[in-house]
Amino acid sequence: MGSNSDYNPFTMNNPLNPEEFRRQGHMIIDFLADYYHNIQNYPVLSQVEPGYLKKNLPSFAPFGPEPIETILQDIKQHIIPGITHWQSPTFFAFFPSSGSTAGFMGEMLSTGLNVVGFNWLSSPAATELESTVMDWLGQELKLPKEFLFTGQGGGVMLGTTCEAILATLVAARDRKLNLIGRDKIGKLVVYGSDQTHCAVQKAAHIAGFDPKNFRAVKTSRSNSYSLQPQSLLKTVQNDLRNGLVPCFLCATVGTTSTTAVDPVGALCHVAKEYGMWVHIDGAYAGSACICPEFRSLIDGVEDADSFSLNAHKWFLTNLDCCCLWVKDPNSLIRSLSTNPSYLHNNASESKGVVDYKDWQITLSRRFRALKVWMVLRSYGVSNLRNFLRSHVEMAKTFEEMVKKDKRFEIVVPRNLAMVCFRLKPLGVVDSDANEMNKKLLDSVNESGRVYMSPAMVEGMFVIRCAVGATLTQEEHVIMAWNVLQEHANAILNDH
Amino acid sequence: MGSNSDYNPFTMNNPLNPEEFRRQGHMIIDFLADYYHNIQNYPVLSQVEPGYLKKNLPSFAPFGPEPIETILQDIKQHIIPGITHWQSPTFFAFFPSSGSTAGFMGEMLSTGLNVVGFNWLSSPAATELESTVMDWLGQELKLPKEFLFTGQGGGVMLGTTCEAILATLVAARDRKLNLIGRDKIGKLVVYGSDQTHCAVQKAAHIAGFDPKNFRAVKTSRSNSYSLQPQSLLKTVQNDLRNGLVPCFLCATVGTTSTTAVDPVGALCHVAKEYGMWVHIDGAYAGSACICPEFRSLIDGVEDADSFSLNAHKWFLTNLDCCCLWVKDPNSLIRSLSTNPSYLHNNASESKGVVDYKDWQITLSRRFRALKVWMVLRSYGVSNLRNFLRSHVEMAKTFEEMVKKDKRFEIVVPRNLAMVCFRLKPLGVVDSDANEMNKKLLDSVNESGRVYMSPAMVEGMFVIRCAVGATLTQEEHVIMAWNVLQEHANAILNDH
Repeated sequence: MGSNSDYNPFTMNNPLNPEEFRRQGHMIIDFLADYYHNIQNYPVLSQVEPGYLKKNLPSFAPFGPEPIETILQDIKQHIIPGITHWQSPTFFAFFPSSGSTAGFMGEMLSTGLNVVGFNWLSSPAATELESTVMDWLGQELKLPKEFLFTGQGGGVMLGTTCEAILATLVAARDRKLNLIGRDKIGKLVVYGSDQTHCAVQKAAHIAGFDPKNFRAVKTSRSNSYSLQPQSLLKTVQNDLRNGLVPCFLCATVGTTSTTAVDPVGALCHVAKEYGMWVHIDGAYAGSACICPEFRSLIDGVEDADSFSLNAHKWFLTNLDCCCLWVKDPNSLIRSLSTNPSYLHNNASESKGVVDYKDWQITLSRRFRALKVWMVLRSYGVSNLRNFLRSHVEMAKTFEEMVKKDKRFEIVVPRNLAMVCFRLKPLGVVDSDANEMNKKLLDSVNESGRVYMSPAMVEGMFVIRCAVGATLTQEEHVIMAWNVLQEHANAILNDH
Repeated sequence: MGSNSDYNPFTMNNPLNPEEFRRQGHMIIDFLADYYHNIQNYPVLSQVEPGYLKKNLPSFAPFGPEPIETILQDIKQHIIPGITHWQSPTFFAFFPSSGSTAGFMGEMLSTGLNVVGFNWLSSPAATELESTVMDWLGQELKLPKEFLFTGQGGGVMLGTTCEAILATLVAARDRKLNLIGRDKIGKLVVYGSDQTHCAVQKAAHIAGFDPKNFRAVKTSRSNSYSLQPQSLLKTVQNDLRNGLVPCFLCATVGTTSTTAVDPVGALCHVAKEYGMWVHIDGAYAGSACICPEFRSLIDGVEDADSFSLNAHKWFLTNLDCCCLWVKDPNSLIRSLSTNPSYLHNNASESKGVVDYKDWQITLSRRFRALKVWMVLRSYGVSNLRNFLRSHVEMAKTFEEMVKKDKRFEIVVPRNLAMVCFRLKPLGVVDSDANEMNKKLLDSVNESGRVYMSPAMVEGMFVIRCAVGATLTQEEHVIMAWNVLQEHANAILNDH
C-alpha cells in the first residue's frame, strides 16, 4: 500500500462519492475514538525536536494518489508524536481547548455542509441559528437585553477573541474619529492593564493606533492583579493633559496569567465619563457566568459596549468559536460593511436580515452555530453548569494540596479553575526562586506526564495549573500534584 | 425522544466518552453520506423566508440534555431547508466551495485532535506539516524559491483571503511608516482596480489607512476588466504630485465579477518603481496554476512580495483555508509578533522554529495543514490537475451553448471555469437588459434547480456561471443552460 505509482482510487472520479465518504468517515471516527481511549499513553507535551517531521516526509507532493490507509499510517507514525495533546486529561497548560462529542459533531456537520455563510441568503439557517444561539447563550449569561437581538443588540460567532477585539476596536476608533476628524488617529489611546491579553495591543497596532498610545496600566499583587479604577483614571487624566483622546478600554474577566478579574462596573464608570468604548474580554472566564454563583464576575457588564468569550476554551465547543455580543451592531456595520455587486440580493436589500459579513473582519465564515447549538442541546444548561463546577472543584483540590506543602506558595487567590503557584522554600530569594521554578516546570513538562505553562507576574516566575480539559478527573489532578512534588524533591535535593 | 425532562445520557459523565463519540460519529457520517447522495433533491438556493427558523426553535436554551436523535431530526426538519447547498452539482454562484472526502477527513482529524497551534511547541506537527505542505504546494505552483522555506520565504495557512490581505497590508504599512514616520499614516495610498475584491478596501480601512486613499483604478471591457499598468502609473503619479505615498498594490488573478487577470509582471514593474508592496490575490484562480497550461496567469509573481489563494475555493479543501506565501516573513513578524510571558518556551527562544502566531492576525489557529495534506495525497497532483481541467471543460461547454443562442451574449472572454454572460436580444437597450437579466436570474434561482449569482460591470448586470462544485458533471451544466433558456423564453414572451 505504500507505493503510489499505480493506485487509482475510485474517489478521484468523484471526490464526494457518498460510499467512499462513508467508508473513510467511519475509519476516521474509529481512529479518533481510539485516540481518546488511548490518549493517556502519549506524552502530553510533544517530545520531538525541531525539524523532526521534515526528515520523515517527501520533499515534493505526490504526483499520484495514495490510499487513506497509507495516510492514516503516517498520521500514527509521524503526526501523533508531534502533537501536544490538548485533549489529554493531564493537559493543564494555557487555558483548556475543551472539545466534546457534541462540539465535534457540530463541526462535522458544518464541514460536511460546507456552506460559506457570509450573508443571510448564502444559507439562511447559518445566520438564523447563529442569532438564535447567541440570544440563548446571552440569556444564560444574564446579559442585559441590550446585548441581545430581542433587544437592540446582538451577537456574532467569530474565530477568536483577537477578531472580536479588532472588530470592536475598529468600531470604537471610527466612532471617535467621526467626531474629531480622521487625521487625529495618532491621538487615540487604548487602555488595558499590564495583565491584559497581548491580543489587545496587537489589535491596536493592526488598526493603525500609534504604538505609543497603548496603556498597560500597572496592577499589583495586593489587588490580585486586577485593574484599579483609580489607576485607570490617573492614566486617562494624564493622557488628556497631553492632548490625547481616550478611545477604548479592554477590561478582562479572568486574565491569562492569573485569572485576575477587573472590576467591570467601576471601570465602565470611569471609561464612560471619558467617552470610551468598553469591551469586556471574558475569553476564559465568561463561560462560567452561566453558573449563578459565578455570574457576579461580570457584574457591571450592563455599562459596557461589548462582551466576548471563547466557547472553544471552556464551553465544550471545538476550536474555533468566539462569541461576541454588542449593544450597537450598527457601530460594527458602519465600520465593517461592504456592498459589492457580486453579493447583491433581494434579502440583503430588504434590510430585514442579518448579513454577518458586516459584523466581522473577514467575508467567508463557517457555520459555527451548529457546534454551540449541539453543545447546548446535547448537554443542557444544567449539566454544563455542573461540568464547569467540577473543574472548579478539582482546582480547589489542587490548591488545597499546594497549600499544605510549605515549600510552595499560592501566588494569587484562585479564581475559578486555575491555580497560580510557585515553589518558594523558606529563605530562597525571588531571583533564585524564578530559576528554580523554571527548572521545575521544564522537568515536569519533559516528563510527558503532565503539561503546565508559566507566566511572569511582577518579576515572579509562576506556574499555572489550568483545570478544564474535558477528560480531566480528580485522579489526574492528584497525579499532577504528585509529579510536581517528585520533581520538586529532586530539584531541592540537588540544590 | 422529544421530551428533554428526564433524559440523562451517558455522555455528560464524560463528553468525550470514546464509545458515545463512536456511536454519534458513525451516525453523523451516515447522515452526511446520505446528504451527498440525495443532494439534488433539495432546491439549491434555500427557499425559506427571513425569520423562518426563529419560529421553529424554542426561545431559550434547554435546561436538560437532549439525545442526538432528536437533534438530528431537527437538523433534517429545520436546518436543511435553510441551507443553500454549496455542495450541490447545480451550484454555480459566487465561486465554488469545493469540499471533498479528503478535505473533510483532514478537518475531522484537526477537530478531533483539537490542538491550538499558535506556536511550534503547542503542537510541533501542526507547524511543521504546514510549512512542508506550503512548500509542496508552492513548488507545484512553480513559485520562485524566494517564496518557500527552502528559500528565504515561506507560507502560512490562514482562514480567508481577507486575513491574508490584512496581514500583508499591515506589514507593508509598517515598512513604509518606519521610513517616513508613523504620523504619516494618512498619506499612504493603497491601489487596486475597480474589479479588486472588496476585501482590499475593507482591510485598508481596518488597518487605519485614510478611506480617501484607496484607489480603485478604472478598467474597461476592451481590456477584459484587467488593471492596465499605464492606468496604475497615471494614478500613482497623480498621488505623488499631491504629496501622497504609494504603499500597497493588490493585483488580482481571477477577479470575482469576471475572472479578469491583471498583468502581474507589468504591474509589479510599476509598483516596485515606487517602493510599493505587491500582493497577488489568486483566491480563485491560483489553484489552477498547478496546471502547466494555466501557470502563465501568474507570470511575473517573482517580482511580487506575496501571493495567496483559497484552497477552500477550488482545491477540494473544505472551508476554511487560505494559503499565503511571502518573500520576507520577517516583515510579517515585525508587525504581528507578540511575546507574552504566558507563551514563553525554550523552542521559541531558540529562534529555531516557526511560531505561526506571528504571521497572522489571530493567536489561536486550527491545524489546517492536515486538510491540504490529505487532499494532495489522496488525489495526487496529477488527478487534481485533471479535476480542475474538467471544470474548465464544462465551462467551455456552457460558453459554447450560450454563444449559439443569439439572444445572449458572452460579456468577457471566459477565463478558466467561469462564464460571464447576459440576455441581450437585438434592439434591447442596456437599461432594459439589466432589468431583464435581473428578472431572469431571480426566476432561475427561485426555481431551486440551479443557483447563479450576478455582478455589475460598467453598469451592465451580468450573470455569472462558476463551474467548480465537486459534484458537478457535464449533465448539470447542460441542465443549467436548459433552465436558463426556459426562463428566458418565459421572460421574452412576456416582454
